[in-house]
Amino acid sequence: MIIVMKAHATEAEIQAVVTAVEELDYRGHIIRGVERTVVACVGEERGEQHSLAHLVAFAGVEQVMPVLKSYKLASREVRPEGSVIDVGGVKIGGKKIAVMAGPCAVESAEQVESSADAVKHGGAHLLRGGAYKPRTSPYAFQGMESEGLSLLEHAGKRVGLPIVSEIMEAADIELFVAHADMLQVGARNAQNFSLLRKLGRTKKPILLKRGMSTRIEEFLMAAEYILSEGNPNVVLCERGIRTFETATRNTLDLNAVPLLKQMTHLPVIVDPSHGTGLWTLVKPMALAAIAAGADGLLIEVHPNPAVALSDGPQQLRPDHFAELVAAVKPVAEAVGRTM
Amino acid sequence: MIIVMKAHATEAEIQAVVTAVEELDYRGHIIRGVERTVVACVGEERGEQHSLAHLVAFAGVEQVMPVLKSYKLASREVRPEGSVIDVGGVKIGGKKIAVMAGPCAVESAEQVESSADAVKHGGAHLLRGGAYKPRTSPYAFQGMESEGLSLLEHAGKRVGLPIVSEIMEAADIELFVAHADMLQVGARNAQNFSLLRKLGRTKKPILLKRGMSTRIEEFLMAAEYILSEGNPNVVLCERGIRTFETATRNTLDLNAVPLLKQMTHLPVIVDPSHGTGLWTLVKPMALAAIAAGADGLLIEVHPNPAVALSDGPQQLRPDHFAELVAAVKPVAEAVGRTM
Amino acid sequence: MIIVMKAHATEAEIQAVVTAVEELDYRGHIIRGVERTVVACVGEERGEQHSLAHLVAFAGVEQVMPVLKSYKLASREVRPEGSVIDVGGVKIGGKKIAVMAGPCAVESAEQVESSADAVKHGGAHLLRGGAYKPRTSPYAFQGMESEGLSLLEHAGKRVGLPIVSEIMEAADIELFVAHADMLQVGARNAQNFSLLRKLGRTKKPILLKRGMSTRIEEFLMAAEYILSEGNPNVVLCERGIRTFETATRNTLDLNAVPLLKQMTHLPVIVDPSHGTGLWTLVKPMALAAIAAGADGLLIEVHPNPAVALSDGPQQLRPDHFAELVAAVKPVAEAVGRTM
Amino acid sequence: MIIVMKAHATEAEIQAVVTAVEELDYRGHIIRGVERTVVACVGEERGEQHSLAHLVAFAGVEQVMPVLKSYKLASREVRPEGSVIDVGGVKIGGKKIAVMAGPCAVESAEQVESSADAVKHGGAHLLRGGAYKPRTSPYAFQGMESEGLSLLEHAGKRVGLPIVSEIMEAADIELFVAHADMLQVGARNAQNFSLLRKLGRTKKPILLKRGMSTRIEEFLMAAEYILSEGNPNVVLCERGIRTFETATRNTLDLNAVPLLKQMTHLPVIVDPSHGTGLWTLVKPMALAAIAAGADGLLIEVHPNPAVALSDGPQQLRPDHFAELVAAVKPVAEAVGRTM
Repeated sequence: MIIVMKAHATEAEIQAVVTAVEELDYRGHIIRGVERTVVACVGEERGEQHSLAHLVAFAGVEQVMPVLKSYKLASREVRPEGSVIDVGGVKIGGKKIAVMAGPCAVESAEQVESSADAVKHGGAHLLRGGAYKPRTSPYAFQGMESEGLSLLEHAGKRVGLPIVSEIMEAADIELFVAHADMLQVGARNAQNFSLLRKLGRTKKPILLKRGMSTRIEEFLMAAEYILSEGNPNVVLCERGIRTFETATRNTLDLNAVPLLKQMTHLPVIVDPSHGTGLWTLVKPMALAAIAAGADGLLIEVHPNPAVALSDGPQQLRPDHFAELVAAVKPVAEAVGRTM
Repeated sequence: MIIVMKAHATEAEIQAVVTAVEELDYRGHIIRGVERTVVACVGEERGEQHSLAHLVAFAGVEQVMPVLKSYKLASREVRPEGSVIDVGGVKIGGKKIAVMAGPCAVESAEQVESSADAVKHGGAHLLRGGAYKPRTSPYAFQGMESEGLSLLEHAGKRVGLPIVSEIMEAADIELFVAHADMLQVGARNAQNFSLLRKLGRTKKPILLKRGMSTRIEEFLMAAEYILSEGNPNVVLCERGIRTFETATRNTLDLNAVPLLKQMTHLPVIVDPSHGTGLWTLVKPMALAAIAAGADGLLIEVHPNPAVALSDGPQQLRPDHFAELVAAVKPVAEAVGRTM
Repeated sequence: MIIVMKAHATEAEIQAVVTAVEELDYRGHIIRGVERTVVACVGEERGEQHSLAHLVAFAGVEQVMPVLKSYKLASREVRPEGSVIDVGGVKIGGKKIAVMAGPCAVESAEQVESSADAVKHGGAHLLRGGAYKPRTSPYAFQGMESEGLSLLEHAGKRVGLPIVSEIMEAADIELFVAHADMLQVGARNAQNFSLLRKLGRTKKPILLKRGMSTRIEEFLMAAEYILSEGNPNVVLCERGIRTFETATRNTLDLNAVPLLKQMTHLPVIVDPSHGTGLWTLVKPMALAAIAAGADGLLIEVHPNPAVALSDGPQQLRPDHFAELVAAVKPVAEAVGRTM
Repeated sequence: MIIVMKAHATEAEIQAVVTAVEELDYRGHIIRGVERTVVACVGEERGEQHSLAHLVAFAGVEQVMPVLKSYKLASREVRPEGSVIDVGGVKIGGKKIAVMAGPCAVESAEQVESSADAVKHGGAHLLRGGAYKPRTSPYAFQGMESEGLSLLEHAGKRVGLPIVSEIMEAADIELFVAHADMLQVGARNAQNFSLLRKLGRTKKPILLKRGMSTRIEEFLMAAEYILSEGNPNVVLCERGIRTFETATRNTLDLNAVPLLKQMTHLPVIVDPSHGTGLWTLVKPMALAAIAAGADGLLIEVHPNPAVALSDGPQQLRPDHFAELVAAVKPVAEAVGRTM
């Protein structure tokens, strides 16, 4: 921590800060500048750094600036070569791009089987589908729940694709561990720390979506909750953030892809379906994601988007999905990756 | 719903939309404008309105615009006179301003008892304190949990103030129902629909905080989750939204106060401690909140902010809290309220 | 500046940074922490601080953090007692609240004379009105321009109120200096540095509006452009920022009011008309602004908002304006101010 | 326009709205829904649509929703095949990607000549450089102004690249028209309508940057200001928007690229230097921009970023620029474009 004193801080105020710093087991170096004095605090500050943060309440203190990032296990420094996560035999984070696709929501056996065929045929490596749906309105379709998960599991097994589905509460962990290959944490639960902690006690691969207003560092701290409980199998997913722009459902923050790849060893995939909210933008943004360095894609595909029970406007038709995968291939190769 | 066709939509495309609208049990009125044709859909659309939304995927459709708001039970229309919620004998939503105060986190018996004395003496009507703490970092202090709740309950009973504390997961509902007078849902769980739904099955007063990126209408939909399960005792809390501004921890959106008071019958309180993140701004923003029409305040008070285990920079000292309450009184009276 | 080195920065990299720092005429103090080494730079850095900023491009550097704020003349430190700006005899920044009111746009002689009567009668101290209008669409009404300014001047003189009007380009400075008492810089020109600099060469009072995405520190830097050219007569105006919230036209950031009052000696007023975009929210937010410590208000009043040529939805009727002023008075008194 | 009445709007209120609509020369169609009545307004509404907007101030009106977009000349509908803009012989908007590169600011003859060699050698098609610099601080380097423009012109002629440079005020138009091939309007002037209008009276190609808080539709309206004055030579530039994320200088909104390509016939280029603020992110985001469908790139290149007088952290070294261009080529080809 660097503690910046106000312009007219008194010597007594500076000494009081140093005393407080040392009571917290740091050493305090006083540096007297032309206009400001700063106190640099040296010590093992990770975790407790908030204790130094309150020094902002001391007389004469202008601000307290952290020097260290708060995440540790997620840091690139601890695994410079990057992590590769195995999801039912599919590797995420290596040279090969991983494509997860399927309907926003599981709606019926027919719909999910048809979707599974479509995405398998189109070139997907994992089958995704929502059994439990977080919907803004309590009156909207909430998903087929455990029955939906069974249908998805059946379809995945039939076509030979591991499945990924969103878990909404800790009470369902046992169910998901038994029936899904990868557990997705949705944007609205991105900082549901109770859920993250409990998922950290499983060994299942977790697909952690960025929250709508989660900063990059907070995103890594959310991953850190899972990692710190012992589960190293975390894949990050950029899915758009909330901004002032209303022409798209969210603003897909592709800056986050190369930045995360520099900051963490965890794989990073991109969801252009939620990230744009408009099916006509999904393909170009999928290409952009791969060009930016993403390790995979999460794409919503529905046999008939016009009758989908949720998120119809952003789901692709099977033929459009196959076109997307075909278009991704040369871009992936252009940046040294494979499909 | 109003469906806007593209400039060059064909007659066949328009008719296809009308047919689809009517298959969904709406009537479709075609209105031919100078440059655009629109199809106005008439029917009972609340809840299922998403089904019309996918018509955006139809050929020739430019956009689909909802006409109705999606919340119903939270709407001012259903109770124009406004709701008054009773929390352990304290009324929230009437003429009298309700002040909730206490430490960010319960840290020890001494600290919570001292806080309880301070806020009671300063003029608070409820005692707040965090037993379970949602912290960005897994390495930060996570709260004293059930022991903290007991300490808070004891302190509240001793000084005669009902208590409010944050619940983080559904598994703790029974514990909180037994020991707390009001259950707070924090900003990070503002769209944890599983939790909201289960809280809707209790009769306990719920203090629902707005999420960091929750739009006003979504905030009301979150309340609707609780109301629709049968619990009418919801108090809304504006606590700041996340914006580009970094000089304050959040941007306290006081526009939300008079707007919510027009849109809903639920009481609205304001948390200027989180809304600013800086104790020096808490008093002026508390006065502003009351002037804007808030029904109450949520204020963080700590016997010694400089040693607080969380959120030190935004907690008030007991003497500053007493000053704040004294300053609020004339403003409340100036707008026709009482303390 | 504080330069934070990466975890594994080499000794040679650290020394290269220190050498570069010293070539820029600063002294570099090396502080070796447990996990990071930082280099604290001591010297007169205001103005040139960007030269240190590029050290981020040096090998082994993780980040460069500024310690000093970049504004100087606008800082509270240089005039702790606060500035009072005189606009045609009306004082802004003292104990008395200043109310500026009038139509969004000058539309005709009748409309501006009628508006002048209404706002004078309602209790305003200055008459505002737009002669040149920055409109999002080139096809929308662009204002009556110099004729509008003359009409406004005439109306102001007749009722005895100084006038304030928006200037959009440097070419009009002479005209405005001759005919207006105060020159408004609109949100879209908040960082039009060429214009600000030229306004700094006049002595006219400037009403500087915050831009839609201007951070507080940037807002003060914009004021600094005017001050640094020799014009000390700057009044700041919070008018709402752009956020994800769409229920209101802008998000009125009242946090900015007490924060600016702590940071700068310049007076701060609030525009709840643009800050909300909805006339029903103007009165409660005007009260909130005064409670938060604002020195004045800027209110749009139109004799007949339903036929206004711009911004109809946010303009108040004369009777509503009079009610607003009457309601502000007791709130102002409650916080130790007068009308 | 669609006017939505409140739930309990009276018949008289509905009729008053229809009367007002017809006085404004529209026809008003009343559509009575289950819970709301709406009035659909038919007529030529472009330009004056704001007049209907004030109907929101009428009794019984809940909201007024525009159906038409306000831009017209910029619309894709008027030129479905897309525009190709010629800048000194370089075509922007065709199959071939256009790369503009050069230093943030012109600092000296040596620096600009060296930059020109570097970008020419690296594969750029245009030379960019700032002669007039909009700087947040009045104490920062403000550019070499007309001398800088001359130096840039000289360097461009020598290496055979057309030049693009930022114009900050209308007074300089003549100078720029004489000496530059393309005039850039910076983000801070994106809604400086006086400047845009005057640039519309030249025939010079204009590089219009998106403002930090400009919505897509507003961006097109800004272009419409130039087009409507008779200058069809506008190239749009996405350069990042301001969001809550602080890990990058701006959030590069690549969604805007395919969306703009659908909405407008104007070419769209991307500036990943400002869009990220970090040189290590420039290359991956340049690749992503091309994959998303951008027609060109604007890249900051400096012979020695560590001593640059502005924006050092985001400028590329010449060798990194050459690597970037080499890496863009296969991605461009993968999406059917050429370099």
